[in-house]
Amino acid sequence: MNSELLQQAMREYEEKLFLKEKEASYYPEKMRELGLKNIERFIKYHPNPSRLMKLGITYAHRDLEIVAESMANNKPWAVISGLNPSGPLHLGHKTIFDELLWLQEQGAEIFIPITNDESYVVDKTKSLSDARRIGYDSVIPSIIAMGFNPKLTHIFVDSDYTDIYNVAMDISKYITLNKALKVFGFDESEDNPGSLFYRSGVQIAHILLPQYMEFGGPKPTLVPVGIDQHPYILLSRDVAERKKFIPPAELTLKFLWGLDGKGKMSASREGSAIFLTDNPNEAVKKIKSSYTGGSALATYQREHGGVAEICPIYAIQQYHFDAEETNLYTRCTSGQILCGKCKEYAAENVRKYLEKFQSVLPEAKARTGEFLLNTSIRSILE
Amino acid sequence: MNSELLQQAMREYEEKLFLKEKEASYYPEKMRELGLKNIERFIKYHPNPSRLMKLGITYAHRDLEIVAESMANNKPWAVISGLNPSGPLHLGHKTIFDELLWLQEQGAEIFIPITNDESYVVDKTKSLSDARRIGYDSVIPSIIAMGFNPKLTHIFVDSDYTDIYNVAMDISKYITLNKALKVFGFDESEDNPGSLFYRSGVQIAHILLPQYMEFGGPKPTLVPVGIDQHPYILLSRDVAERKKFIPPAELTLKFLWGLDGKGKMSASREGSAIFLTDNPNEAVKKIKSSYTGGSALATYQREHGGVAEICPIYAIQQYHFDAEETNLYTRCTSGQILCGKCKEYAAENVRKYLEKFQSVLPEAKARTGEFLLNTSIRSILE
Repeated sequence: MNSELLQQAMREYEEKLFLKEKEASYYPEKMRELGLKNIERFIKYHPNPSRLMKLGITYAHRDLEIVAESMANNKPWAVISGLNPSGPLHLGHKTIFDELLWLQEQGAEIFIPITNDESYVVDKTKSLSDARRIGYDSVIPSIIAMGFNPKLTHIFVDSDYTDIYNVAMDISKYITLNKALKVFGFDESEDNPGSLFYRSGVQIAHILLPQYMEFGGPKPTLVPVGIDQHPYILLSRDVAERKKFIPPAELTLKFLWGLDGKGKMSASREGSAIFLTDNPNEAVKKIKSSYTGGSALATYQREHGGVAEICPIYAIQQYHFDAEETNLYTRCTSGQILCGKCKEYAAENVRKYLEKFQSVLPEAKARTGEFLLNTSIRSILE
Repeated sequence: MNSELLQQAMREYEEKLFLKEKEASYYPEKMRELGLKNIERFIKYHPNPSRLMKLGITYAHRDLEIVAESMANNKPWAVISGLNPSGPLHLGHKTIFDELLWLQEQGAEIFIPITNDESYVVDKTKSLSDARRIGYDSVIPSIIAMGFNPKLTHIFVDSDYTDIYNVAMDISKYITLNKALKVFGFDESEDNPGSLFYRSGVQIAHILLPQYMEFGGPKPTLVPVGIDQHPYILLSRDVAERKKFIPPAELTLKFLWGLDGKGKMSASREGSAIFLTDNPNEAVKKIKSSYTGGSALATYQREHGGVAEICPIYAIQQYHFDAEETNLYTRCTSGQILCGKCKEYAAENVRKYLEKFQSVLPEAKARTGEFLLNTSIRSILE
């Protein structure tokens, strides 16, 4: 055997093990730092926890107890989860929407703000209208196609649901400029008044909206997020207390690895994401050229196994398909299955999923009207 | 004569002369500092300048030439002048509305934002709804009662004309947070995200609104203001250039003295203002107990005259009634007329004005619908 190749394989493997360790400590550290609780106790007592919870992908929370109480007693509770429409949804978004679907099965009334104003003011799109168009043409149909119940799901695009700005003005009085500047760490020469107001006003308005009188007043509200969204929850809890609302609870999900292995799946890194609107053949190609937890040297990988914990292909299989049922973790880490075969199998899962998903998109788009929120928020004006 | 009284009279007179000098240098210094031009040239060439211009109350401008060109050639131009509805209008507001009426006679399309969001976020009212109510119940009827032409006048309350927030988001991308923080000098522990966004987003949106496609696109726009509003014009000129709009022109009016002699007439200083909705008898009482430019010692005042330049009673007579026609300045400063008599005469003018004004308010209120703007701003969304 070429010893140079072997040495390279060893170095790469060491690197991947190092990343795996970093990954293993990242979430527990964040939990301690932010004072979040493990989800285990909730799983133990809930008759039917979500698939993502059982897999440890939904891993932490704050105040979930208050929500669980409403869940168990059929009292009203809400979930809010928005996103900025700078491009089509990808498999990373699907994770959170899968959890939303489970929450809706448990009785949640779900609010989904499509934040085209955010896309624009944080420079992800050239204009409000570009982001708005992506919202209606791509993001909203994709959300509907996932199977939400229109009676319990309220989607709105900020620029069209401008009552949200009255709510944002209403709540902004409860936050000092000082706090807003500190919590979000703006770059004052790059950020703008709109991005400041978005983050510390409009976003908090989204989170507290379900507790306004028009939706029945104060109620437990759950915000499923990635850990990077934590500051919004913190601020909204502060405001909620001052407005005599119930401080929103947080449910934290792990990120899905991007195909480039450089962090979470994100539209902003070229080649990191599989979009739900990707041509299935293109998606298969992306998977075939993806970074993995394996080695370039088959013999080495057979001996040492792959590092599933940092492998985007494993993650996709685990988050969205049948890694659990096919015992993929053991087969990978024991070296039984190599990356080529694994990618082929994952590619087929993704292809089938995308084909099926995309086949229902036109019908989903036609149903947009059933989901759009148009409740006017008059209680703060009259 | 009691020499103690005389000495006190002398001291007071010296003080008033000192204030007069300060007042005389205040506006020229501000003009130099801010790079504004004197209005004289405009007066010279305009066939029929406004009464306030001829009196030197409207005293400075920037880029008025561009507006004058549209005025002279019957091309479209706009005026924007808003106010926050934290209380009823007073005689200080009347000054600016008188100038607006003259501008409308010259052909201006006038936009009047009623900024209940401002009232709330800068802590002048307890809620958005309080300020909104004052807007519809008091401020808007008073504006209409002044005699505006509904075809050329667009009034809107921010919380009800929420399209303004889309415009504010649209323009906020052209202003760095840095600039907004510097220009307005926020108190970061007192101000809030809403007041920052109001000042550097919504207010700029008001000023640039007439240049959006829905109102015919870029056009000369004039903003009549007190000198303290200058930063808004500056910012809006920056944004206008970047959006290929015409940088708005500024027309600067002197403040009306408050009855307490402590600065401009303002609702925020108790006893400073005569409100247009004051009971006429109450208004007369306010005038009778007003600070003046005269002396407590009649003999002293007969000899030295009053200091009209810093006298709120003289100012009211000059700004709003017949000081010019009755030669009041000379009669006052020469000691011919003393404060008691002058106040009596002013009180009668104010009483008659208020009685007449208030008699038309109910009809004015009933016409609110004719003036309200409801043009949807779709060009930035579609």
